[in-house]
Amino acid sequence: MERDHVKVLADSMKRLMRRGGITHLRKMVNNAHASDLASVFRSMSFSSQKKLLDLVEDIDGKSALFAELDTDILNALVEGMEVDDVATILEKMPADDAADLIGKLPEKKSAALLKAINWEGSEDVEGLLKYKDDTAGGIMVTDFISLKEETTAKEAIASLQNEHMDVEMPFYLYVVDDYGKLVGVCSLRQLVTVPPATPLRSFMATDVFKVKTYTDQEKVAKIVSNYDILAVPVVDDENVMAGIVTVDDVIDIIRAEATEDILKMAGAGEEFVETKSVIKSTKIRLPWLFASCLGGIMAFFIIGRFEETLQQVTSLAAFIPVIMGMGGNIGTQSSTIVVRGLATGRLQIDDLWNVVLKELAIGLILGFVYGALIGIVAQFNYSTPALAFAVGLAVISSMSVAALVGSMVPMFFGRIGVDPAVATGPFVTTAIDIISVFVYFMLATVFLGL
Amino acid sequence: MERDHVKVLADSMKRLMRRGGITHLRKMVNNAHASDLASVFRSMSFSSQKKLLDLVEDIDGKSALFAELDTDILNALVEGMEVDDVATILEKMPADDAADLIGKLPEKKSAALLKAINWEGSEDVEGLLKYKDDTAGGIMVTDFISLKEETTAKEAIASLQNEHMDVEMPFYLYVVDDYGKLVGVCSLRQLVTVPPATPLRSFMATDVFKVKTYTDQEKVAKIVSNYDILAVPVVDDENVMAGIVTVDDVIDIIRAEATEDILKMAGAGEEFVETKSVIKSTKIRLPWLFASCLGGIMAFFIIGRFEETLQQVTSLAAFIPVIMGMGGNIGTQSSTIVVRGLATGRLQIDDLWNVVLKELAIGLILGFVYGALIGIVAQFNYSTPALAFAVGLAVISSMSVAALVGSMVPMFFGRIGVDPAVATGPFVTTAIDIISVFVYFMLATVFLGL
Repeated sequence: MERDHVKVLADSMKRLMRRGGITHLRKMVNNAHASDLASVFRSMSFSSQKKLLDLVEDIDGKSALFAELDTDILNALVEGMEVDDVATILEKMPADDAADLIGKLPEKKSAALLKAINWEGSEDVEGLLKYKDDTAGGIMVTDFISLKEETTAKEAIASLQNEHMDVEMPFYLYVVDDYGKLVGVCSLRQLVTVPPATPLRSFMATDVFKVKTYTDQEKVAKIVSNYDILAVPVVDDENVMAGIVTVDDVIDIIRAEATEDILKMAGAGEEFVETKSVIKSTKIRLPWLFASCLGGIMAFFIIGRFEETLQQVTSLAAFIPVIMGMGGNIGTQSSTIVVRGLATGRLQIDDLWNVVLKELAIGLILGFVYGALIGIVAQFNYSTPALAFAVGLAVISSMSVAALVGSMVPMFFGRIGVDPAVATGPFVTTAIDIISVFVYFMLATVFLGL
Repeated sequence: MERDHVKVLADSMKRLMRRGGITHLRKMVNNAHASDLASVFRSMSFSSQKKLLDLVEDIDGKSALFAELDTDILNALVEGMEVDDVATILEKMPADDAADLIGKLPEKKSAALLKAINWEGSEDVEGLLKYKDDTAGGIMVTDFISLKEETTAKEAIASLQNEHMDVEMPFYLYVVDDYGKLVGVCSLRQLVTVPPATPLRSFMATDVFKVKTYTDQEKVAKIVSNYDILAVPVVDDENVMAGIVTVDDVIDIIRAEATEDILKMAGAGEEFVETKSVIKSTKIRLPWLFASCLGGIMAFFIIGRFEETLQQVTSLAAFIPVIMGMGGNIGTQSSTIVVRGLATGRLQIDDLWNVVLKELAIGLILGFVYGALIGIVAQFNYSTPALAFAVGLAVISSMSVAALVGSMVPMFFGRIGVDPAVATGPFVTTAIDIISVFVYFMLATVFLGL
């Protein structure tokens, strides 16, 4: 439903643009949900994007759209705009989104923008810019409700009606002491279910989940999702509240981190590149392939060293693909399970040997199964038991080494603090290729007595 | 912090179990958050799990733990328990979690359980069991707040204080007409900010995001995350409300779907298997490797057909790994980008030719770069321009075909309604291996005039 909806919207808008039906187009653009409009922008050319943006009538609409647009589309659009116009839109955006946008612009532009922004919240944006993008500080919003312990439920409700109209997610009220330090939390629901004169102190929960401004965003996401909460407060080292991270941002993080892991493991960069140009995509993918190219050239030199063996038994060449393929595929299984297991918390880095030994056992069992199968095929074709034996043994060793390397490398990288996903993908596959080929020719040379 | 926290907890519990420090252990178990305790269970043996479960003192604690435990751990524990004891715990669980658990048990056990459950909500569980696991109906909760249009804000607040104490996420109030049909939604926040006598009708939003009971859970997740809402109402075909899906369940879906995609693409099953036994893991991974084994054997027969060519120029064998590797790796890049793009909505199925042509262009460019590089290496080693040319051309064609196949297969599967992730992984790699090897030997035979 949702995808079709966006598709219909995009098609109608394209048709209206071709026909010059500006009045209709304007109505359609201004009635669309910002999230849908942002999806429509993905399938539009740059000039159409500019045209559509101009049709958005009020600043609120523009800022809602800005908050939803993909970074690369947004940057391209902002580049062509007047600083003052951008500033007017940013003034209406939530501080965290505005900070994100400014942080990604060229320095000259971002400095000019910060100067041009004229806004009670501009110090928030400048404040947020000092936190790293992937920490709690970088993703938090600074609009939250904090009240003193002695505030009554009735006063708290009144403050919701007057002061806190712009807070994004007013479902938790944070309770602070006289020094601004976080001491408790109550829910909006509690406010309406206790007698009006009850002070917050007497019904707040004091066992508050919280994170530090420098906590990694992945950890923040885990806390929010493991404990099923809608927002987590962010405090500094003095326990003074700096902001909150809300569940909708956590969803974006979880999705982005999964995409990042998947792409890294496939050696296809970190960010989603399909919307970028052919040249940009090529540039991102080129270096990863270089690793595999180097590995292939190494395998070439290894096989070159066994040229004599090969000249005597040409048929050895025919088994190279199956031996490499079986090793490569089981290695991918192992490394994928470990990388994803570490990312989701199903595996712990400290369990290194448990995990690796289990993978090795699986590699050995599967190696025996497929080694026997492929050995039999070899025997049927060449009726040379020594060859069949060498091939079967090569499959077993290739598969068990692959399971070992595939599980050990990401565990090891995780332990020394390198992202397991980036360290895995092409590197593991390439290493396994080289080892498989080498072991295969060694075994063949020995068994065939060459 | 969170991981260390669980690790420390698990280690302390293990130490106390060894030493028989039951009093301390009991205190620790009953003070731990259910989510943390569930994580601890993952690193425990079955007998320790049973011991810990027995230490949980009240039924509420047990039901909270049950709601958090991994399915396989839970099933194993439930199998050894008395039906009545399980029923007592299930009675305290949210209906959706209870239904999930019952749905996964052997039929005999689940029938006995349903009979034993004695509870006002038991018809909810039975009702939920009729929906498929991966639809909105299968993941919704049936506790929600629905009020008539003419209810006033004050009356609504009163109903929160009296009737709806057990609702999980009371942040939205759904407004229904006299026939129970959904007509609007208000937020808890609005209730406290409008004059008390205002009827819901006059301030509710009528443009409600909603899903059908049979809507796929992935679509539900997209709606909740795209529109930044905390819960989405689930209606039947008559627009009568059946339940709501809350954001915390959406997070679990997003994470599970990402894991599923990653594992499927690596040919490592669908569910996370590392916590399962070696034998179970082996069984799940075996069939996927069979595809790659068949492909390898096909490549073997193809190379066998070129035995004469190989006998004359043995060095041809040395290039098999690099040609297969380059094709395989760029193919993985392409298919990963497409599968993830489709899953996240960054790519649309209708853009098939756009995407495929772009990937083909990237494959050609990268093919020329690496084809030239590997061709030069070949020329340096063998000083045979025809060989170098054949190798270079084989790399170009292998890489461009790989980019084409890698992007087209998942797009095509998506279009005919097959999950792109499951259709991709090992199948694409295997197909690319076979094509690469065939094209390479064809080119070599022609160019070297054999």
